[in-house]
Amino acid sequence: KAHSSLNGYRKSCWYEEEIEENLRFCFALNSILHTGATQYQEIALLDTKPFGKALVIDGKLQSAEVDEFIYHECLVHPALVYHPNPKTIFIMGGGEGSTAREILRHSTVDKVVMCDIDEEVVDFCKAYLAVNKKAFCDPRLEIIINDARREIESRKECYDVIIGDLADPIEGGPCYKLYTKSFYELCVKPKLNEGGIFVTQAGPAGIFSHTEVFSCIYNTLKQVFKYVVPYSAHVPSYADTWGWVMASDSPLVLSADEFDLRIKQKIRGENRYLDGKTFSSASILSKAVRKSLNNETHVYTEGAARFIYGHGSACNQNHA
Amino acid sequence: KAHSSLNGYRKSCWYEEEIEENLRFCFALNSILHTGATQYQEIALLDTKPFGKALVIDGKLQSAEVDEFIYHECLVHPALVYHPNPKTIFIMGGGEGSTAREILRHSTVDKVVMCDIDEEVVDFCKAYLAVNKKAFCDPRLEIIINDARREIESRKECYDVIIGDLADPIEGGPCYKLYTKSFYELCVKPKLNEGGIFVTQAGPAGIFSHTEVFSCIYNTLKQVFKYVVPYSAHVPSYADTWGWVMASDSPLVLSADEFDLRIKQKIRGENRYLDGKTFSSASILSKAVRKSLNNETHVYTEGAARFIYGHGSACNQNHA
Amino acid sequence: KAHSSLNGYRKSCWYEEEIEENLRFCFALNSILHTGATQYQEIALLDTKPFGKALVIDGKLQSAEVDEFIYHECLVHPALVYHPNPKTIFIMGGGEGSTAREILRHSTVDKVVMCDIDEEVVDFCKAYLAVNKKAFCDPRLEIIINDARREIESRKECYDVIIGDLADPIEGGPCYKLYTKSFYELCVKPKLNEGGIFVTQAGPAGIFSHTEVFSCIYNTLKQVFKYVVPYSAHVPSYADTWGWVMASDSPLVLSADEFDLRIKQKIRGENRYLDGKTFSSASILSKAVRKSLNNETHVYTEGAARFIYGHGSACNQNHA
Amino acid sequence: KAHSSLNGYRKSCWYEEEIEENLRFCFALNSILHTGATQYQEIALLDTKPFGKALVIDGKLQSAEVDEFIYHECLVHPALVYHPNPKTIFIMGGGEGSTAREILRHSTVDKVVMCDIDEEVVDFCKAYLAVNKKAFCDPRLEIIINDARREIESRKECYDVIIGDLADPIEGGPCYKLYTKSFYELCVKPKLNEGGIFVTQAGPAGIFSHTEVFSCIYNTLKQVFKYVVPYSAHVPSYADTWGWVMASDSPLVLSADEFDLRIKQKIRGENRYLDGKTFSSASILSKAVRKSLNNETHVYTEGAARFIYGHGSACNQNHA
Repeated sequence: KAHSSLNGYRKSCWYEEEIEENLRFCFALNSILHTGATQYQEIALLDTKPFGKALVIDGKLQSAEVDEFIYHECLVHPALVYHPNPKTIFIMGGGEGSTAREILRHSTVDKVVMCDIDEEVVDFCKAYLAVNKKAFCDPRLEIIINDARREIESRKECYDVIIGDLADPIEGGPCYKLYTKSFYELCVKPKLNEGGIFVTQAGPAGIFSHTEVFSCIYNTLKQVFKYVVPYSAHVPSYADTWGWVMASDSPLVLSADEFDLRIKQKIRGENRYLDGKTFSSASILSKAVRKSLNNETHVYTEGAARFIYGHGSACNQNHA
Repeated sequence: KAHSSLNGYRKSCWYEEEIEENLRFCFALNSILHTGATQYQEIALLDTKPFGKALVIDGKLQSAEVDEFIYHECLVHPALVYHPNPKTIFIMGGGEGSTAREILRHSTVDKVVMCDIDEEVVDFCKAYLAVNKKAFCDPRLEIIINDARREIESRKECYDVIIGDLADPIEGGPCYKLYTKSFYELCVKPKLNEGGIFVTQAGPAGIFSHTEVFSCIYNTLKQVFKYVVPYSAHVPSYADTWGWVMASDSPLVLSADEFDLRIKQKIRGENRYLDGKTFSSASILSKAVRKSLNNETHVYTEGAARFIYGHGSACNQNHA
Repeated sequence: KAHSSLNGYRKSCWYEEEIEENLRFCFALNSILHTGATQYQEIALLDTKPFGKALVIDGKLQSAEVDEFIYHECLVHPALVYHPNPKTIFIMGGGEGSTAREILRHSTVDKVVMCDIDEEVVDFCKAYLAVNKKAFCDPRLEIIINDARREIESRKECYDVIIGDLADPIEGGPCYKLYTKSFYELCVKPKLNEGGIFVTQAGPAGIFSHTEVFSCIYNTLKQVFKYVVPYSAHVPSYADTWGWVMASDSPLVLSADEFDLRIKQKIRGENRYLDGKTFSSASILSKAVRKSLNNETHVYTEGAARFIYGHGSACNQNHA
Repeated sequence: KAHSSLNGYRKSCWYEEEIEENLRFCFALNSILHTGATQYQEIALLDTKPFGKALVIDGKLQSAEVDEFIYHECLVHPALVYHPNPKTIFIMGGGEGSTAREILRHSTVDKVVMCDIDEEVVDFCKAYLAVNKKAFCDPRLEIIINDARREIESRKECYDVIIGDLADPIEGGPCYKLYTKSFYELCVKPKLNEGGIFVTQAGPAGIFSHTEVFSCIYNTLKQVFKYVVPYSAHVPSYADTWGWVMASDSPLVLSADEFDLRIKQKIRGENRYLDGKTFSSASILSKAVRKSLNNETHVYTEGAARFIYGHGSACNQNHA
């Protein structure tokens, strides 16, 4: 009863993400596999044509089947490769399970603690993300449902590597306090073993977007650790280059060849994204980004934040 | 690991229909219930936020849960109400089942033949459209999978009402030949009983869109039948006013009150859209549409079409 | 340097309107003719492919070149045709100028007062809407920049027809108080001459949307005037059927033929949308809408509104 | 007359690009500055909110004000920096003027020939792209309107650097023949002076998209030149990483420090994107891309293309 179409037709179901107010990235959809709301956030699992299965939390793409390996290999492997013998790992966040999956490929690793605040996201990912099924069952993995700060403070033991796999430090956002100088100084650093390494995702690191949070996270970590290595990689489904920062009080030096050798010795299976050369390239930032990072003066602190980034009363309420 | 959103977020999954090249109508999606391809067309069943479940064929919305009653009441009831005692009905197309459902509400009806070319659409709608479940099981309904022209030609018996529930007569489209003067003259009219009525959906009937096919269908039927009544109604999910044309060699006259009386006598349950006054209003077309219909000179014929509507060689290929 | 496209390409610039949260209507764009912000609202004049030049205020389409005649003919002509000899007219709102343009086509009209609150919109439309140029220069037109209530209260003279061409009565919106029973009783009715008629646009009047404001405006006017006539018409660029309500203490009865005769006698040029039959059809509402209007019990009042429609403190602030 | 909006509203005018069939990138629009059609292509100049002024040809973003410097610095400076003393430059394509602009910053350069087939694009960019105004007037620049192959063949003189700033080598597309082995062998290489360098844009070079044309362009150039350097950079407005390939029969070796030194000696003004470290990073491709390039066996040839990349009869028609 409607118009017939002689020539086939265009894709008609779309996922649409507002990367920012003026910019949208849209994926044709095969199906909407699941939608729901947890105590903390809204989650959806979509089957997209360009990027496969996509986990969306609060309207933001978290990870897409076809290229999440870039994010997760970059988050996990540099720290675990630079560390000569990482045995115990603590993940702040990471409920999706992909970070644990990459860690568990390291033969040196004895124990992984993954501490996510949202039990329902963890259960959801356990149920729906086939690629992480094996990791979720690995006996070396302990899953804790708690606020990452409270959990790490309450624990007596230290870790070889601590990994921050949290939402960005947007003021008023749920994770802001897990990116401050005092948190790094008082909670993270004391829980690292001798020679331990901390690494965190650090938000978008594109030519324009790196000033949102990447440069501040870098500068904040520089106040706390002796050696800090920022690096980045383009993640197609994010429509941007993404950033990570690795930090330690032990020197972080490794040639591309040594990096490759350690990968071969330590990691089961083959990386799809990261090897020695890729990391060399990823850790040489482009001119403009390098300049901004060097010139960055802002340090994330709980006190300062309120005045520097505050957006009036609405925001203060979020802090309360 | 992506930006957190402090303030909630916008709908992110959408169905997008190109009403025409320059015009889109987009519905937020709850889910994609089913997609598939039959021998003839691609079908999808979507769960949309503004219009409920929506059946989409070849990228065009066919019918939406919340307002399909407008289309189907308008297609079925005027003819069956005007006819004093409709017992046998033939539906050309109508695989969705909603046309049959409305017909079967008439207590006078003994037999409904529904002839659709696409078995898989019929099976799909049987399986998924709960609202038509009962109709599909009604013993008075006979479902035939065949080309409507071939079927009606092959049948000996005549019908009280014949209903055209087909795709629009776009040249080169699958249904073009079921809207021509010769088809009406040679196939439809001979198969109507004395006092029989033919009614067909007749495409968009808006202030601008009625010249696409509505006025020609009206004019073509005027060449074949003594009495022809065009009428229209706004269907929100189509983003347009839709048209139907009813035709007979017996006079089609009924006051709003008589119309209401017959509805009460003949139709089980209550109409949601159509009553006597509504039909009075629907059959008084607005000035511009009335004028176009009166001035229309084009008649759909198989021969003429090629030359009058042809768009050069590309189009002729479609005819081959 | 980018991908070449072999087969031509799709429209790439679009105007996108959120009709409601879950529904978008999108027009391909030729150009963005003007954008700006006044003291009260943001305005844009777009050149769209499907609907020509389109005036958009605060992200909502106000009127589109190709079909604004439907809205404005329906708003103006019924009242001025029903009134035997309309000489003086007061427009509340109407800054676009199209309402004045239609009024000024009536040969009986001596004086039109158009009272809009936003001088910049008036200036903008004067400058950009060629179709209303002549009307803006007509010596019978007096343009006043003021709040419509304050203006009409301050005036001593009465009018034959008063026309409400205002934004919908959304609570907290700028025009809410111009739709209340007390406003109609205390401000409008006393300013009508003997036999005078009031008419107002009344929001969407579609099968679902008529309960938003149309039924309440109708019911509110019924409390104040003896004779009230609601009517509606599909406006393609609004993706909906639109409603108007005409009210008077004198009977509002006119056959379609008398309506046509008066049009011929009184209106210069030819109407594109409205004639006697069109108005007959427009004033017979469909079953569901008729029923809702008859059953509507809500009356817009300033006091009641706060409690019935209030959305908490945010809304009360808007009332302050 | 439409709904009032209490809470502000979303961006409503958008440019929408289909990056591929299933992927769209959408920019909010300030205005559409110019649209038109030349003999060869459709062009538009848009003012976008996220990326400033954007030149769009045949529905594909060519270059955006805020980040075109990335593309053009990467296309021009490596070759002109690696070459010890580049005096004469030939640009195939480049009608936008930005490539010439970057070349003309080099103090060694005496003469730039820019050969674009589309005079109207050149005129359009001259008229509208303020950033290139000075370059278009530089006496060292000679603009030729011709097919690049015909032009370069007809010229007797050789060049120090030849630059390919053409649309991608899509089969059947306008530029396919300017990427083949025979073109490089018979037309480009003979027109390079001793020590001369050829560089070409080489299409998307993302983790997935690099197999479209980047790896083949690289492999084709490897058949013709002794030294070939592929490199890439993320360009935000393209929503992808982009690739270039530099080729020469003289060794292409330069440390990051030497690169920086030469920049200082040769280039007026300061680069925004490229310096020695950035180029080191850009020319170390990530693991997956490196692997594909090494394993690529396809070579662009005019004869082979038809069979290897043909998509059946539709495609062959494009060749006719």
